[in-house]
Amino acid sequence: MMNIKDWLSAPRTVCGIMTGTSLDGIDVAVARFSDFDGKHQYELIDYYTFDFPAELKSLAMRIIHEQIHISEFSEFSYLLARAYTDSVKQLIAKSKIDLKIDAIGVHGQTLWHRGEPTRGAIYTHPASLQAISFSAMAKWLEIPVVGNFREADTALGGHGAPLVPIFDYEFFRSTEENIICLNIGGISNITILPKNCTLTDLQAFDTGPGNVLIDNTMNILFDLSYDRSGQIAETGIISSELTNELKSNRFISQKPPKSTGREMFTLDYTKDLINKYSYKIQKEDFITTFTNFTALSIAENIKLFSMPADRIICSGGGANNKYLMKKLKEMIPACELVKSDVYNLPGDSKEAVCFAYLAYRTLGGLPGNIPSVTGATKETILGVIAV
Amino acid sequence: MMNIKDWLSAPRTVCGIMTGTSLDGIDVAVARFSDFDGKHQYELIDYYTFDFPAELKSLAMRIIHEQIHISEFSEFSYLLARAYTDSVKQLIAKSKIDLKIDAIGVHGQTLWHRGEPTRGAIYTHPASLQAISFSAMAKWLEIPVVGNFREADTALGGHGAPLVPIFDYEFFRSTEENIICLNIGGISNITILPKNCTLTDLQAFDTGPGNVLIDNTMNILFDLSYDRSGQIAETGIISSELTNELKSNRFISQKPPKSTGREMFTLDYTKDLINKYSYKIQKEDFITTFTNFTALSIAENIKLFSMPADRIICSGGGANNKYLMKKLKEMIPACELVKSDVYNLPGDSKEAVCFAYLAYRTLGGLPGNIPSVTGATKETILGVIAV
Repeated sequence: MMNIKDWLSAPRTVCGIMTGTSLDGIDVAVARFSDFDGKHQYELIDYYTFDFPAELKSLAMRIIHEQIHISEFSEFSYLLARAYTDSVKQLIAKSKIDLKIDAIGVHGQTLWHRGEPTRGAIYTHPASLQAISFSAMAKWLEIPVVGNFREADTALGGHGAPLVPIFDYEFFRSTEENIICLNIGGISNITILPKNCTLTDLQAFDTGPGNVLIDNTMNILFDLSYDRSGQIAETGIISSELTNELKSNRFISQKPPKSTGREMFTLDYTKDLINKYSYKIQKEDFITTFTNFTALSIAENIKLFSMPADRIICSGGGANNKYLMKKLKEMIPACELVKSDVYNLPGDSKEAVCFAYLAYRTLGGLPGNIPSVTGATKETILGVIAV
Repeated sequence: MMNIKDWLSAPRTVCGIMTGTSLDGIDVAVARFSDFDGKHQYELIDYYTFDFPAELKSLAMRIIHEQIHISEFSEFSYLLARAYTDSVKQLIAKSKIDLKIDAIGVHGQTLWHRGEPTRGAIYTHPASLQAISFSAMAKWLEIPVVGNFREADTALGGHGAPLVPIFDYEFFRSTEENIICLNIGGISNITILPKNCTLTDLQAFDTGPGNVLIDNTMNILFDLSYDRSGQIAETGIISSELTNELKSNRFISQKPPKSTGREMFTLDYTKDLINKYSYKIQKEDFITTFTNFTALSIAENIKLFSMPADRIICSGGGANNKYLMKKLKEMIPACELVKSDVYNLPGDSKEAVCFAYLAYRTLGGLPGNIPSVTGATKETILGVIAV
């Protein structure tokens, strides 16, 4: 149906839009993708993070956590389409380059995700719901929109996640080095790319907390949303007692494939730890200890489950936390730690560029999931296309 | 993006699936469409109405009428995809012909629809939500699925309905006769096609009740779901007093464009009328009177708002009600009343065939809405495509 040959025959400018579960921003990136006999290249053209509208955020939180009338879900889908549309228009307006966008890949807002089959539910299989009105966006912008990337993978028995590994594989695998792509968002995850790997050699999984414990604590103790550059972490002392309690979390050394979410590291979980330890350690020490533990959990997963890495390519907000990066470097001294920025991919833009790339693959008739990573029965073209 | 030329260059076999708001069945039709220099032809190949799974029906009713957790909506979308998938597989299995289906057009289940802009809502514009997991269906059947036809029209300010008129226009307009396509489902609607009309001459709107008053009353007074062939209606007497009360409904003579739904002719509305008149008229008389009024409201709309019709092509369950058809013929004696069956389109299959045709148009890069009918700002390609 799709004119595959035509799509891949010329470089395509694709916009990617990502809004994560933290609902803290709308990441918009525009990249140009090219196909050279099946090998792809990307070039980041522009990106920006727009505010997530407050009214929309509270509606999303209500839909996720409360009982709602279905009309609220319908309204949210259109409203998010409008917010995404406005963001794209603003990026085009503020860009120094005359952006001619061929297609848009959108993640949509996850309102429900269940990677594992569940007994008790009426539909017991994996399920994933990312809200956004694709057609509304496509009509308002007059650009084809591709989205709903997770559903096809879940329909084939997969977790519908992670989807970033195909991007890591395509653009960061090496014939000379063992590479790990590390993304430190709320949760940390890694893609392991052994030298000369094929798709089936690849591993990808969550390692545990990313910024979530640090951000929660900054929020509770400092009334700030995050520890800029790790400045607070630099001033405290690591509590070995708190570290030991954190290390008792079985997830850290659990064998992959594995995935976690904020539900394992909630605000309540953080509050409980703060209450338990606040009589013996300082405010700053919590930040230092949580940051150190975050590095530790990443390093531990790499030591346990990866080949020795020559290079770790870091992205996500956590890559800007100098204390976190310093600790990680101390824990895995043998490998080079670089930010994805050196590959013309600022850490904040990576997920948005990934979803642009997934759209590029779908329109090119190429599969986007990796069965060995998601658990799906086979690789498949992901998503729906609104023309 | 779509390879338009290739799609229209050969006849395509498309399956259409419709489930209406009454949730009483899954209509599945398979038709072959051909393009002859822009003029289309259809050939119905097979069709069948499958039971709507009871568990799924009660879940849908709960989502429509109650407060729910969003996970229930997600589950419903996958479960409906499975029910649709099973229906397609069963049709293929029971068909005498070796069905090779190129694409599927699905309506999905309407869980929320608001054709008019509404003050007070957060999103004040028209909105429409048809649930179904497109990707799950596409992957389970390994056939591209097109759906979500209403959203694009609402995004352009239209009601997202009616969508059947493009089908009526394409296949039933005439250079020799004034044609009306009449569909008598729960609600009745007509498409008016003046001789030699163009798209902008076309009118389409709801005329008032279809089977809804009759079915409600059969349910309340006879514990049956409908009046087969109008047998009960044949035995009663028309109550002029009840008819006069029904005629006072302003919707009947309201100027088009107009649309109604079951909310205007609810079970409670029917019950109130029965309570009010049951001391003076017989059970059968209610059926006769409601059936006569249904014919009257259709005839009245045609007299008020249409050119004199040469031919009325009837579809929907009501076309099988002989008393209703007889009354309608008496009220509009000058025109010929035929069932769509004479066009190789059994009335029960029409809406499913329409959605197959809408998918055919979308994949051919052709618009599917008619702005003068829906109120959208322009004609546009409808829907999303799951590959």
